[in-house]
Amino acid sequence: MSDVKKVVLAYSGGLDTSVILKWLQETYNCEVVTFTADLGQGEELEPARKKAEMLGIKPQNIYIDDLREEFVRDYVFPMFRANAVYEGIYLLGTSIARPLIAKRQIEIARETGADAVCHGATGKGNDQVRFELGYYALEPHIKVIAPWREWDLNSRTKLIDFAEKHQIPIAKDKRGEAPFSVDANLLHISAEGKVLEDPWETAPEYVYSRSVAPEQAPDEPTVVTIDFEKGDPVAVNGQHLSPAALLTRLNELAGDNGIGRIDIVENRFVGMKSRGVYETPGGTILLEAHRAIESITIDRGAAHLKDELMPRYAELIYNGFWWSPEREMLQALIDKSQETVNGTVRLKLYKGNVIVEGRRSHNSLYSEEHVTFEEDTVYDQRDAEGFIKLNALRLRLLKQAHG
Amino acid sequence: MSDVKKVVLAYSGGLDTSVILKWLQETYNCEVVTFTADLGQGEELEPARKKAEMLGIKPQNIYIDDLREEFVRDYVFPMFRANAVYEGIYLLGTSIARPLIAKRQIEIARETGADAVCHGATGKGNDQVRFELGYYALEPHIKVIAPWREWDLNSRTKLIDFAEKHQIPIAKDKRGEAPFSVDANLLHISAEGKVLEDPWETAPEYVYSRSVAPEQAPDEPTVVTIDFEKGDPVAVNGQHLSPAALLTRLNELAGDNGIGRIDIVENRFVGMKSRGVYETPGGTILLEAHRAIESITIDRGAAHLKDELMPRYAELIYNGFWWSPEREMLQALIDKSQETVNGTVRLKLYKGNVIVEGRRSHNSLYSEEHVTFEEDTVYDQRDAEGFIKLNALRLRLLKQAHG
Amino acid sequence: MSDVKKVVLAYSGGLDTSVILKWLQETYNCEVVTFTADLGQGEELEPARKKAEMLGIKPQNIYIDDLREEFVRDYVFPMFRANAVYEGIYLLGTSIARPLIAKRQIEIARETGADAVCHGATGKGNDQVRFELGYYALEPHIKVIAPWREWDLNSRTKLIDFAEKHQIPIAKDKRGEAPFSVDANLLHISAEGKVLEDPWETAPEYVYSRSVAPEQAPDEPTVVTIDFEKGDPVAVNGQHLSPAALLTRLNELAGDNGIGRIDIVENRFVGMKSRGVYETPGGTILLEAHRAIESITIDRGAAHLKDELMPRYAELIYNGFWWSPEREMLQALIDKSQETVNGTVRLKLYKGNVIVEGRRSHNSLYSEEHVTFEEDTVYDQRDAEGFIKLNALRLRLLKQAHG
Amino acid sequence: MSDVKKVVLAYSGGLDTSVILKWLQETYNCEVVTFTADLGQGEELEPARKKAEMLGIKPQNIYIDDLREEFVRDYVFPMFRANAVYEGIYLLGTSIARPLIAKRQIEIARETGADAVCHGATGKGNDQVRFELGYYALEPHIKVIAPWREWDLNSRTKLIDFAEKHQIPIAKDKRGEAPFSVDANLLHISAEGKVLEDPWETAPEYVYSRSVAPEQAPDEPTVVTIDFEKGDPVAVNGQHLSPAALLTRLNELAGDNGIGRIDIVENRFVGMKSRGVYETPGGTILLEAHRAIESITIDRGAAHLKDELMPRYAELIYNGFWWSPEREMLQALIDKSQETVNGTVRLKLYKGNVIVEGRRSHNSLYSEEHVTFEEDTVYDQRDAEGFIKLNALRLRLLKQAHG
Repeated sequence: MSDVKKVVLAYSGGLDTSVILKWLQETYNCEVVTFTADLGQGEELEPARKKAEMLGIKPQNIYIDDLREEFVRDYVFPMFRANAVYEGIYLLGTSIARPLIAKRQIEIARETGADAVCHGATGKGNDQVRFELGYYALEPHIKVIAPWREWDLNSRTKLIDFAEKHQIPIAKDKRGEAPFSVDANLLHISAEGKVLEDPWETAPEYVYSRSVAPEQAPDEPTVVTIDFEKGDPVAVNGQHLSPAALLTRLNELAGDNGIGRIDIVENRFVGMKSRGVYETPGGTILLEAHRAIESITIDRGAAHLKDELMPRYAELIYNGFWWSPEREMLQALIDKSQETVNGTVRLKLYKGNVIVEGRRSHNSLYSEEHVTFEEDTVYDQRDAEGFIKLNALRLRLLKQAHG
Repeated sequence: MSDVKKVVLAYSGGLDTSVILKWLQETYNCEVVTFTADLGQGEELEPARKKAEMLGIKPQNIYIDDLREEFVRDYVFPMFRANAVYEGIYLLGTSIARPLIAKRQIEIARETGADAVCHGATGKGNDQVRFELGYYALEPHIKVIAPWREWDLNSRTKLIDFAEKHQIPIAKDKRGEAPFSVDANLLHISAEGKVLEDPWETAPEYVYSRSVAPEQAPDEPTVVTIDFEKGDPVAVNGQHLSPAALLTRLNELAGDNGIGRIDIVENRFVGMKSRGVYETPGGTILLEAHRAIESITIDRGAAHLKDELMPRYAELIYNGFWWSPEREMLQALIDKSQETVNGTVRLKLYKGNVIVEGRRSHNSLYSEEHVTFEEDTVYDQRDAEGFIKLNALRLRLLKQAHG
Repeated sequence: MSDVKKVVLAYSGGLDTSVILKWLQETYNCEVVTFTADLGQGEELEPARKKAEMLGIKPQNIYIDDLREEFVRDYVFPMFRANAVYEGIYLLGTSIARPLIAKRQIEIARETGADAVCHGATGKGNDQVRFELGYYALEPHIKVIAPWREWDLNSRTKLIDFAEKHQIPIAKDKRGEAPFSVDANLLHISAEGKVLEDPWETAPEYVYSRSVAPEQAPDEPTVVTIDFEKGDPVAVNGQHLSPAALLTRLNELAGDNGIGRIDIVENRFVGMKSRGVYETPGGTILLEAHRAIESITIDRGAAHLKDELMPRYAELIYNGFWWSPEREMLQALIDKSQETVNGTVRLKLYKGNVIVEGRRSHNSLYSEEHVTFEEDTVYDQRDAEGFIKLNALRLRLLKQAHG
Repeated sequence: MSDVKKVVLAYSGGLDTSVILKWLQETYNCEVVTFTADLGQGEELEPARKKAEMLGIKPQNIYIDDLREEFVRDYVFPMFRANAVYEGIYLLGTSIARPLIAKRQIEIARETGADAVCHGATGKGNDQVRFELGYYALEPHIKVIAPWREWDLNSRTKLIDFAEKHQIPIAKDKRGEAPFSVDANLLHISAEGKVLEDPWETAPEYVYSRSVAPEQAPDEPTVVTIDFEKGDPVAVNGQHLSPAALLTRLNELAGDNGIGRIDIVENRFVGMKSRGVYETPGGTILLEAHRAIESITIDRGAAHLKDELMPRYAELIYNGFWWSPEREMLQALIDKSQETVNGTVRLKLYKGNVIVEGRRSHNSLYSEEHVTFEEDTVYDQRDAEGFIKLNALRLRLLKQAHG
């Protein structure tokens, strides 16, 4: 066991990270700094402070930060500029929060002179990778502690025993195994494990918490407009909102209309497949809206290049490489394309559907003049013949030569 | 005007291609062979035969072919193996039919000794490109006639005048300008132009013909299973069906449930943007089902490579390069991945939604054993540390060196 | 023939563009502005001025610009940051000059109130595309005149006749057909056509003009160092040089040592293959040197992303899409990677070879410590086991499931 | 230490793998099967047999295989179809041998009922990854032993002590540290480490063993022809040769002419940079020749797709993913393109240079007719105008809209 003086723990205030807190003190005999972030997961943070205090953390070692605006502005929105989707459907709701948590933990480590950081992610998942790649990329010599890979508390019973022995309060509903595990932030909430493990079984309705079922959504559609500036949403129904407020508003609208649920078997970076049920209500609207505003404001060359690079970009974020030069290079490319992505999209929300109804922009590249049959100044139909003939030339030569 | 002896016309039996037929006879003084294909567009073909006869085409010069099975088996299904989507949402319903029509026209040209082929696509669209690239790729020295780029019948009035002058029957509803133009086959139906030209305006309900509106769909969900073999669907609800029958069945199920509508501003290959409203009911189900069966039967390496190449593949089909070596190379790559794509997907159809509920396969790569916490034979959680450390190494060196 | 008032002609002062000059005056009855650029092609420009005057061009309509520094700084160097190579070997020497000429022609058109531009590229080559895409991208409503596609002077005899008739002086060696055609600038010189048309025949030595044959180069190697800052070369053998001076210096060093010749059959954008013999002496050194300095100063993630996107970037430049959003997006990505590309490369030049002998940098990511066997702080050999095991996991599951 | 009954060791007969042999017997108390492959490394194999016998290996447990033909035919040639180059210059000479060795070890494990395999690669290099990914991909439950990551013989002194203690003969020149480490097979020989560790220092001439220095090569060029069938070389100077014989012949020709040396700082998969000096004489000729024959026999679409995917393919082989579905998918794509890659290339070899002088093929797509100015049947220069105008359209609309 290497020597650790002070460790910054990503602390939720829940049972598991409270056990980790005690285990760190006991195992490493070190000072613990707790860091609890509000990323919009929908929980009160003050209880985490109280619990940390109760577990013996000094007040100056308790960090509680509201990171919601930073999260949406600097992580979620840049990612949505790319229309990033992992494996066709996952909007990367968990993946995108990890780099920010890692960054803030490292900042706190610097502020407090800590030599180590610690997270509560398990040894089979992606999150351990995302946290730790972030830590190392930002602070190459930091010591990383991953209790779930180190300790022997590898069953619920042992964990509960440890908690009882260390007088960590245990909520009644935490004594047994949870029927599934959860991660949440302002962009999404995920459910994995246990009741979801058979991919042939329908996910039970109770795993969903941010959206009504499409069947339970209102019979009347909701029409909404979203305004964009430089690729980012800035207003809903004409009302300017801060990034976090805007995403919150979209979450409400979408959740009410049964929008944003997915059920996926995905490929983890660590090598196995896992099944997850995710809700990304506002994000689902945002993706459709962003694509729609791009459809009239960016050029085919830009659009197709973005489309081709998107899977790579999404994979980088999924795998935890937010803080890598290649992600930053792709971001530079993407951001370059967003300068003219301004305008308004009108959408209809109805029982799980996000239906694009209209889009307009002062930067629109769509031109009625050029698609109708009337004479226009830049398109002569006769040009099409030459265009086709030269595009066909290599195919003709090929057929002639190879038959 | 170059010398043409015999021309194979893609003939629908409608007013426009009847005008073309007469115009060809008059302009080129040549023999005309009509070719009418059943691609599942939903129209009777015998009237086309009668009309051709009436316009003076010899019986042996009238070709009417039912190509539905070939269309779905050899064009639609191979394309769906790639999960091909153009610009994020268009399922390429029109694009994928053109190569088959072109191929058949060339075959008929060879059979009848024709030296030219002719299509009725306009001079501003993609279809002219798709037809002609097909013609040239398959028969490099064929003469191509594109009346809409050549003649002066460039207004509805002139066209009607020409028809009347040549005693071509004109249906009453064809006298005026159509409120939008349509293309249809078993995979999809598209609407473009006129009433759809302002991309800010909601598309009117009457442009849709293959699906009810989500609002009008049944209040009860429909659950359906689809079986796949080597990446292609082979059965619906356990019933084996031929390719065309299967797609027909999915179209019914989807259309009844308000599934498969999109409203898009897309980038045409010829350089301008256009707005289209498309219905691809069965295809929309098929795409989701195929992704779901792939999610448990192909490996991450295969899946991500497919995802990265998909936009290129879709672009090739959209642009008309089906008959190109690069499309064939990509197809070889895609098909290679589909050998183990076998199994069953269960979906819930509900008011516009296609919801994956379950997937299973004898070739499943998903393993409950490896995602749960129990001991397994191939995954040791401690391996994750080394995995992360070596993935992080270059990022650490980077930070050390560049700060 | 559309109405043209004033046209800016890309004018070399040679016979062909002098004929064009007269043909423009005669055909369009318009004012002609001549634009002659020094891009390092190695010809005096003052004779072009005299000839233009002699042909009746007003002094204020004669533009002669030394663009060498701009050419190398803003076009050649940004392209070399990408290590751009077309089809494995062509360094894009002709392609990269066209966007600058087009840009300057448009600027002059604006300055002089001209409504048209004109170039002397033929109708079968790439250069017409590169010029005209540039014109249109920068000035969408400009009128473009491409005489070689319009006139009937389609044989050497007719051209000479026209010249004689219009009292255009004809150098003796221009009366007959040239044995090959040439394009030159500071980056390269190309030879195409006639004596090179059989790709099985060895290119005759007399087509080369910027380099000695490797066999004729000195028996003693020349060692040279090149310093880089942010991806661009700034000094040769420790001597700081302006961009054009630096490339000139490298051209001398390389040309003396028989470096930079290629013989290629390439795929033109207009659809056919053509054979070219190119000399890019300094550029050949520069490419090797840039790769070498990158090898120690950029990270694997950055390097591989660049490598994967390079062919696309090179194709865009080859095809004439310098002034496109996708080229600019890729440039943003590439430039982002070059911030730390600083340092020195030492090369040996010897009879056609450019041999990298050493590279060093204050930003070096190479670390002896980490490649030797001694203990290091960030690499633990035992980590390799976990790294391999998790990379192998999906392959093991695949074999287990699919056999 | 897990239980091992029988292990197949990749055995060279050298000191290091002899120490491993003894260490395996001692540490695991298990039966050892030695596998020694002739991959063209240029060493006698019979001494390995004698040494194995001397170290107590039963005759039936000694496998010595000549894999040269299989190596070149099934690994080297398929890779060269892709024009695979890692990081711009490395021809993957070491990487491509590992999958075959791994495959054969697993086959022998099956034949002999062994439950483990063992290799002698170190814990900081790529080869451990390549071997082990191969093992696991082919036999998911095999036990892998990597002594360099496990034992404590981590200095030369300890290794020699162990050898002496176990009466392993030690060649005189093996007592001290080697000045660099070597890997060799029929495709290449590599040198790494020690004297090469400072990337600013010129590699000493004595690290090269397969080629003379360009300065020492003959003053007279050597001209050679290579015939290709379906992308693979089949004859040199008109003489048909088996794959291994052909590569051997090219190695001689190239080595004599100072061809095939590179000096690279490369990015290892395990995360650090390393400097290597490689000789790939015949392979260097082969790459140029293959590109040249492709230049006239495959179409632009095929060629560019290959170019864009090549870096990915090369990376997969470098990283050890030969036995992965994505490598096999890419191979299917590449092989599809090679059907018409038939013909002959003529090259001049001279003091380090491989100069393409001519190429011809019955499948040639190059057509003099289409590049000259004469009338041709498929190219009309006026088509270029339409081609350019439609390619320019989106750029014009962009400029109009965005200024």
